[in-house]
Amino acid sequence: MNAETSRVEAEHAIAEAATECSNWGRWGNDDRLGTLNYLSETKRAEGARLVRRGVSVSLAQRFEAEGPQKGWRRRTNPVHTMLETGLDAAAGTQGFPHGIGGADDVVFMPLQCSTQWDGLGHIFDHGRAWNGRNAAEVVTSLGDQVTGIETAAGVIAGRGVLLDVGRALGESGELPDGFAITERHLADTIARQGESSRVGRGDIVLVRTGQLTRARRDGWGDYAGGPAPGLSFGTAGWLHRTEIAAIATDTWGFEVRPNEFDGAFQPLHQVAIPHIGLYIGEMWDLDALAAECAADGGYDFWLTAAPLPVTGAVGSPVNPIAVK
Amino acid sequence: MNAETSRVEAEHAIAEAATECSNWGRWGNDDRLGTLNYLSETKRAEGARLVRRGVSVSLAQRFEAEGPQKGWRRRTNPVHTMLETGLDAAAGTQGFPHGIGGADDVVFMPLQCSTQWDGLGHIFDHGRAWNGRNAAEVVTSLGDQVTGIETAAGVIAGRGVLLDVGRALGESGELPDGFAITERHLADTIARQGESSRVGRGDIVLVRTGQLTRARRDGWGDYAGGPAPGLSFGTAGWLHRTEIAAIATDTWGFEVRPNEFDGAFQPLHQVAIPHIGLYIGEMWDLDALAAECAADGGYDFWLTAAPLPVTGAVGSPVNPIAVK
Amino acid sequence: MNAETSRVEAEHAIAEAATECSNWGRWGNDDRLGTLNYLSETKRAEGARLVRRGVSVSLAQRFEAEGPQKGWRRRTNPVHTMLETGLDAAAGTQGFPHGIGGADDVVFMPLQCSTQWDGLGHIFDHGRAWNGRNAAEVVTSLGDQVTGIETAAGVIAGRGVLLDVGRALGESGELPDGFAITERHLADTIARQGESSRVGRGDIVLVRTGQLTRARRDGWGDYAGGPAPGLSFGTAGWLHRTEIAAIATDTWGFEVRPNEFDGAFQPLHQVAIPHIGLYIGEMWDLDALAAECAADGGYDFWLTAAPLPVTGAVGSPVNPIAVK
Amino acid sequence: MNAETSRVEAEHAIAEAATECSNWGRWGNDDRLGTLNYLSETKRAEGARLVRRGVSVSLAQRFEAEGPQKGWRRRTNPVHTMLETGLDAAAGTQGFPHGIGGADDVVFMPLQCSTQWDGLGHIFDHGRAWNGRNAAEVVTSLGDQVTGIETAAGVIAGRGVLLDVGRALGESGELPDGFAITERHLADTIARQGESSRVGRGDIVLVRTGQLTRARRDGWGDYAGGPAPGLSFGTAGWLHRTEIAAIATDTWGFEVRPNEFDGAFQPLHQVAIPHIGLYIGEMWDLDALAAECAADGGYDFWLTAAPLPVTGAVGSPVNPIAVK
Repeated sequence: MNAETSRVEAEHAIAEAATECSNWGRWGNDDRLGTLNYLSETKRAEGARLVRRGVSVSLAQRFEAEGPQKGWRRRTNPVHTMLETGLDAAAGTQGFPHGIGGADDVVFMPLQCSTQWDGLGHIFDHGRAWNGRNAAEVVTSLGDQVTGIETAAGVIAGRGVLLDVGRALGESGELPDGFAITERHLADTIARQGESSRVGRGDIVLVRTGQLTRARRDGWGDYAGGPAPGLSFGTAGWLHRTEIAAIATDTWGFEVRPNEFDGAFQPLHQVAIPHIGLYIGEMWDLDALAAECAADGGYDFWLTAAPLPVTGAVGSPVNPIAVK
Repeated sequence: MNAETSRVEAEHAIAEAATECSNWGRWGNDDRLGTLNYLSETKRAEGARLVRRGVSVSLAQRFEAEGPQKGWRRRTNPVHTMLETGLDAAAGTQGFPHGIGGADDVVFMPLQCSTQWDGLGHIFDHGRAWNGRNAAEVVTSLGDQVTGIETAAGVIAGRGVLLDVGRALGESGELPDGFAITERHLADTIARQGESSRVGRGDIVLVRTGQLTRARRDGWGDYAGGPAPGLSFGTAGWLHRTEIAAIATDTWGFEVRPNEFDGAFQPLHQVAIPHIGLYIGEMWDLDALAAECAADGGYDFWLTAAPLPVTGAVGSPVNPIAVK
Repeated sequence: MNAETSRVEAEHAIAEAATECSNWGRWGNDDRLGTLNYLSETKRAEGARLVRRGVSVSLAQRFEAEGPQKGWRRRTNPVHTMLETGLDAAAGTQGFPHGIGGADDVVFMPLQCSTQWDGLGHIFDHGRAWNGRNAAEVVTSLGDQVTGIETAAGVIAGRGVLLDVGRALGESGELPDGFAITERHLADTIARQGESSRVGRGDIVLVRTGQLTRARRDGWGDYAGGPAPGLSFGTAGWLHRTEIAAIATDTWGFEVRPNEFDGAFQPLHQVAIPHIGLYIGEMWDLDALAAECAADGGYDFWLTAAPLPVTGAVGSPVNPIAVK
Repeated sequence: MNAETSRVEAEHAIAEAATECSNWGRWGNDDRLGTLNYLSETKRAEGARLVRRGVSVSLAQRFEAEGPQKGWRRRTNPVHTMLETGLDAAAGTQGFPHGIGGADDVVFMPLQCSTQWDGLGHIFDHGRAWNGRNAAEVVTSLGDQVTGIETAAGVIAGRGVLLDVGRALGESGELPDGFAITERHLADTIARQGESSRVGRGDIVLVRTGQLTRARRDGWGDYAGGPAPGLSFGTAGWLHRTEIAAIATDTWGFEVRPNEFDGAFQPLHQVAIPHIGLYIGEMWDLDALAAECAADGGYDFWLTAAPLPVTGAVGSPVNPIAVK
């Protein structure tokens, strides 16, 4: 297949999936939340009942200069610096009374440098943002004027479900880079894991590929943007049909890389974010949670994944906490 | 009382409270969590059972350039800028294939610029950090080497209790600036609110003064560092004795300002953080939660307040989510 | 005059001045330098001959957190933080061999936070940038693709001329806020100062109003954006006709503020940058230089004002150095 | 030679050179300028007379995200982002009157990320800073309290001399990585270049190795911190004896790398900065200047290299401009 054929195929497939999976207008013209609308109070109350032992697990990577980013399109790792330190305090030069001393700090970071949510203003299809809006009007240099991540500040707490595809289908718990996870793989994983991993309306689905496990063992390498296991473009229908509230993976880019059309770039994002209105999480650390789930055989849990409400942000760092 | 007398009095009172309230060694020499140790799995499971309706509320202010900070000791407001926008995407200059476009962003911010946790490395007493460690060894220019906020990444999810002192004792729900909240005020508030607001081991206590309500109505003014209602220095014993896991207020500085000793600076911090090992939250937005509690008469709830695990940070922005 | 009349008058005056003063095409369609083209090698050699005593003066304000900015449109003051300090070095924890220790630092700052150059991509007129280009194509989120400040990296060194209007026409060396400096005022100042202050092709003109002297004495107040002395809109023709290479003032905004048309915003910028192609400097500290000039009676000197070549920047911090 | 022997040898050699080359006290106990004191007004006037043709050359690399840094000790490349763009202006959403539009920008960068000056507070020897001061008192988290780069704001303009060692002694104008430039090499270069390249008190010496030429051709590779040509440790005496005001190279680290003692780190810095009080420039782009010098046979010129006066900074980005 030559490049032109491939391009045409990608354009066509994306357009077709966009049409089939569109949620535009489903929650009204003013909607700002997309699939987070599925996360109802009833669903949330149901999720809370999953807490039994009280064990809690952070699903965040550390935010640090030694992180995975390589500067692609100015996506750097966080730079954390101190305004004051214990050394200053101990030296007695801070000018505070009665022996009090303090340390304080600042950070400079891309909002999608580590464990994150993509906001609904992060990806566009031919200039169209979520709900059919004009991308040029939604996200200006002042940020996302409509669907900024702050709109989701209080919403993302509910039932989480882990689909540990790496453990179910991989070797030693890891899928190889380039492995495209299909609907069939998801179904197989659910079948193996059992009833607790059924997926439905309002759920927050976490897909573990094992790539982060590998990066932790072998070094970051091309974790940020290189080949990776991930969702197949063909899962767009599943993402739409299941009416999940959000989905996250342990990889940089959620979908399989290299992408399945030659010369393409993140085609599943192009359908999922602007058309389905789906919240996508990336670079989540699912290993400790996976161990807990494997140990007790339960794959659903209470999950809070609160974005940092930076006004107008198109994404957000997040420290998700799962409780079983 | 002259300045020297006042200074001596403050030094003495702080030293006395520090001795009485010290938790040094309670959880071993290697402890990194302080009072978060009280937040047991049992406690957490108990907290989750408080979810009934499934209503969720974010307790975070927005993080934005128009925030309350005035640059004191380089504490500025966040500056959020775009790496790419919808305008770029619509202009078709991003170099992506098949019509996909994207927006991306970065932030520069002090970690304690808005709704936040103070980490255990934030405050020292005469060069001593939590658990008696040498502040100069704990917090260097590389950050907090021992009690960095990442150590608490997975812990802070449990039973929250709102003590709405503003509503219980203030006029129109607000305490005036300079109002020192004493143990008696806390007890009165609990008594008025009823059984659901009992406070004990492992709880996360939220104290609403109403100052943020006022700032929202009247403008920030001196919200960041000026006069404010807050905990009296005299509550150190209560903070220690109740064995709470953490506490947060809707004010910039947690304790009453001006501080109760002439010329003093945050003396309650000097006892609470290095000696009690207490996690303190500041600038939380408790208004929506307060309305929910007043409406249903229940003052306890499930609370997740996950710090952003910036490695070595002495504080963290946070988007706490309460669920009832 | 009502608002609508005023608006029409401003639009008309700006359009007329733009037409009269346009340099579009003067240096070809590909030009990136505007009036810096006037600064020829001959002119530069002439400027160097002005050095006699060898005395040098920095014309930069300090770049620091205590600077004049108030956050207007996210223009904050610089935040300078340390990566490593002498305290770390002295503590011996840096991991370096044989007793070497080091300090290192970072800065976050708007490029126009203090003493600066406006680049040619800084201001547009009805969507048109310098030389008639489409602003939307010139300056995207990736920066100025055509006239980025790096294009001027090696150019701005030549003959400087100080027009100390504050000293010539003000009281105690200061013009009051709101004072509009006209062509006549400039001519009077030149006449009083004498032959060394003649202005012509390729010169870099520095206009001292004395406002910075006042701010230094009385505090910043509204130095950043408030009322100020400055060039009258009516000087557009002079700026064009004299064929100067660049001009700078000791004020935040170069032109008089409030602007001379009701409800207007920096109308002289709208003519000077996109139409004349003029490099404008702001917030320069001209006081020490003014004292030198008054002392020896010579108002011209060698001037180097090298912008920091941040690729694609639309402005730049600068530390200009005058030598006499 | 084993590691211990090597360590002892390095310690000994550094101590010996430090004693021999010390300028402590030469300019009084309060001195903040070190060897910049040699740059007298007479010297400056002499330098200005070197301007003949009026040709000017920037010696700065571009400051950009694609720069040489690799994140060593949090030294990243600059991240430049836009506050407003031409796209926003053209979209008409900026809220400005009468058709004016604007672009504005910010930068986050280590002060030594690209073409730079090391300030006198950058390097210490066994806890001692320039002039024998206690490093722990000089450079705290608030920055350099004594020798901050702002102290040199108006000084560095004078006679520059290019020693193009790469062209004189290398192949195709480039010295290989690891090549240690000795006093003999410097003398040979001066001899070949002729009288205009004599070096003496108050001069600013620029040493071109050709490594940047290579990096520009072959890619950055390990330009930031890897093997490089540079000054031999043995030139400490020459740096001291010649009484030069400052020196700069086209390499990341000024001195040869790997360093000449096994396991050592920048031993020449340890002598040159705290003991000689020498201003060192790094990552200067000397290629265009070298071409000009080779073309006209003159190796001295007028040089202005004004640091950005960030208060308390221990280094500074710089755009040096040479004029012949």
